[in-house]
Amino acid sequence: MAAPSRPASLSGFPEWLPAERIVEQHFLETIRRVFELHGFASLETRAVEPLEALTRKGEIDKEVYVLRRLHAAEDEAAALGLHFDLTVPFARYVLEHAGRLDFPFRRYQIQKVWRGERPQDGRYREFTQADIDIIDRDTLAFHHEVEIPLVVADALRALPIPAVRIQVNNRKLVEGFARGVGAADTAAVLRALDKLDKAGPEVVAALLQSEAGLGPAASTRCLALAEISAADASFADRVRALGVDDPLLDEGLAELVRVVEAAADHAPGLVVADLRIARGLDYYTGTVYETQLLGHEDLGSICSGGRYDALASDGRATYPGVGISIGVSRLLGRVLGRGLVTASRSVPTCVLVAVAHEDSRRSADRTAAVLRARGIATEVAPSAAKFGKQIRHADRRGIPYVWFAGADGEPDSVKDIRSGEQSPADPETWSPPAADLVPQLEEPTP
Amino acid sequence: MAAPSRPASLSGFPEWLPAERIVEQHFLETIRRVFELHGFASLETRAVEPLEALTRKGEIDKEVYVLRRLHAAEDEAAALGLHFDLTVPFARYVLEHAGRLDFPFRRYQIQKVWRGERPQDGRYREFTQADIDIIDRDTLAFHHEVEIPLVVADALRALPIPAVRIQVNNRKLVEGFARGVGAADTAAVLRALDKLDKAGPEVVAALLQSEAGLGPAASTRCLALAEISAADASFADRVRALGVDDPLLDEGLAELVRVVEAAADHAPGLVVADLRIARGLDYYTGTVYETQLLGHEDLGSICSGGRYDALASDGRATYPGVGISIGVSRLLGRVLGRGLVTASRSVPTCVLVAVAHEDSRRSADRTAAVLRARGIATEVAPSAAKFGKQIRHADRRGIPYVWFAGADGEPDSVKDIRSGEQSPADPETWSPPAADLVPQLEEPTP
Repeated sequence: MAAPSRPASLSGFPEWLPAERIVEQHFLETIRRVFELHGFASLETRAVEPLEALTRKGEIDKEVYVLRRLHAAEDEAAALGLHFDLTVPFARYVLEHAGRLDFPFRRYQIQKVWRGERPQDGRYREFTQADIDIIDRDTLAFHHEVEIPLVVADALRALPIPAVRIQVNNRKLVEGFARGVGAADTAAVLRALDKLDKAGPEVVAALLQSEAGLGPAASTRCLALAEISAADASFADRVRALGVDDPLLDEGLAELVRVVEAAADHAPGLVVADLRIARGLDYYTGTVYETQLLGHEDLGSICSGGRYDALASDGRATYPGVGISIGVSRLLGRVLGRGLVTASRSVPTCVLVAVAHEDSRRSADRTAAVLRARGIATEVAPSAAKFGKQIRHADRRGIPYVWFAGADGEPDSVKDIRSGEQSPADPETWSPPAADLVPQLEEPTP
Repeated sequence: MAAPSRPASLSGFPEWLPAERIVEQHFLETIRRVFELHGFASLETRAVEPLEALTRKGEIDKEVYVLRRLHAAEDEAAALGLHFDLTVPFARYVLEHAGRLDFPFRRYQIQKVWRGERPQDGRYREFTQADIDIIDRDTLAFHHEVEIPLVVADALRALPIPAVRIQVNNRKLVEGFARGVGAADTAAVLRALDKLDKAGPEVVAALLQSEAGLGPAASTRCLALAEISAADASFADRVRALGVDDPLLDEGLAELVRVVEAAADHAPGLVVADLRIARGLDYYTGTVYETQLLGHEDLGSICSGGRYDALASDGRATYPGVGISIGVSRLLGRVLGRGLVTASRSVPTCVLVAVAHEDSRRSADRTAAVLRARGIATEVAPSAAKFGKQIRHADRRGIPYVWFAGADGEPDSVKDIRSGEQSPADPETWSPPAADLVPQLEEPTP
């Protein structure tokens, strides 16, 4: 089964080297810890969903990977596809297990998802998302829309990354505004505004007129709305100054004010009302979220989501929810690609036990077992090479300590190979400084 | 996008409820911790491999899931499949990144794999494996074959599961024995012996004669070999008593003795030489491993692997390795299915902060933030319902504590809802007993 030649990587399917994976592990562990501190229960769903569930939204279906067993019968229908996000599977999971879940149900889910689209910077065919959602039966209290961005803010602030800005908007606000300026098809207004960043105001103005049927004045007012952005409740006055009147607009304004004010209390400056944020997916019905990594805005949003009311419904009950998804791979791709964060070593190992002769390996194994039992990650040198070579083995991997058995009743000793300092040590009592126990993340100064 | 009706589960694609997932998280965390204590570096590979790499072995190809983009061109060849194990992808990863890895390279990998075979008890279409491998360039020291089962023994002993028995054998031993009794096709002997558990000695005797071309006496001696099993080196004398002579047999015997003796030193009784273990996959070349969960032998092996010499080769260098894989889903399916282990609660939450009126929610949020900053998982009651209802919210999920704000300058208080005891408490200083901080696993007495 020998491979004929060195295999090539697959575009869009990133893989990390061991030291990079340590950075990823740290990111995932941090995100997980913050989500659990906020009472979100972990969940995983299967990687596959019935194809019809994945293609129901129409817009995204060309990105789905379809599965077929290699030796399936010719006429066996392709019934399964890989999930392209974690929201659609979660909605299905809630419907399937509703009778055994307690509502409101708070869950986090960190898994890979797949999209067959053309790979580019920050856009992969296989990538990891970290989602939180709160879903309830029949009605979902608005305050959860306030809560969700604050949880994510805690998670992102705990990571060694540049500062972020969470942009929030409200679908009711935009829809009410669109109705207030006389739009018959408010969804078309949302779709047009969603293109503002990519296509610019002139194209969007044209779309607002051609696709959403607005007149030039209404179109101008929609563009003026989309220009509004503020880190406090002042945005509401600027919206009202545009002179549009609609009850749904008022409701959306009041909700967005609550989100922004609670966020300013929790983490000043982090959350900004930005009325151009629309989110392409059409299932959002209230607050929507996007997140910029400051200084890396070209990457696009690293964390997005919103409130949805009709994603999960089984005819008897509806399960409205609100959620947000951290694009872990997109974030890590940038962090690792630019060398913003590195790991202090490429292995978990803290101590390498040296082996003087192959016949003392069993004794080295016992020393290692004692250290491990005390929580110190330890490996034994793979060969009884010259000690210089064994030290190089540790050095290449960044293992900070090498352990030497004492000869003839002498005590063992441990050498910090960075300083060269060697001291007597007993495996039953010696401990490394906390900073050496597990790999640390470092942020190199440019 | 409402689903028309309650969706059904997919056979072979298990999903856990939140409390079950907590058990799984504990298992995975324990396995990970033990692997890292032994100096294995974490790694993940992409879920897909080129189809040709997955079907190279021939035997397993009918189980592969092939991927196709839903809107791929008609003539676009299906080039990718989902990996069916973690060994083939790891061998590919090593070849691809050989220049950037340090050898011997120790890695662990915990991921889902997919096989399109018919689902049955302990056999899934999507399941999680936890693998460790040690791979070196050109030559791999034998002592790693001794080491691998001891690492896994540490991991399995750290889990709340019934005792296990790791069965070991050696391909050289069996192949040398087969050669010694005159078999021309030793691989056919291995394949026949591999069927012993399922098909019984009579069928295997017939296969040894029809497929491997052995005479009746040689076939009987092979079956006698397969009957040998011992927890110490005594198995070697019983093999020698069969009167077969071959240098490869001697080499295999010596190696297996070393594995069994080192294991008896490390964990008495856990590892047993069992000469019927063959492992179906034909890439193994030295020690092979299987593992029985005692009292659940019907489940099949929960942890298997072995030494391989030619799995990764790029024409310039060969990378021999040894590895073992814990069948996490198979193990968990039994543990959860039989209720052998349960979680003390279905959420990570330790404290629910009660909300007296909706206008005190902001203050409850601040109390929760203080507790979280001190590492205590906390959520805030979703509505300002009667306190009895808020306590039931906690009770249903197994949240042990409910926090009440003090009225009119009185101190806050915290209620242990299991005992009903309520005491004054300050969020800056109060801590729960360690056993309440995170969900615990419990082993119900039958």
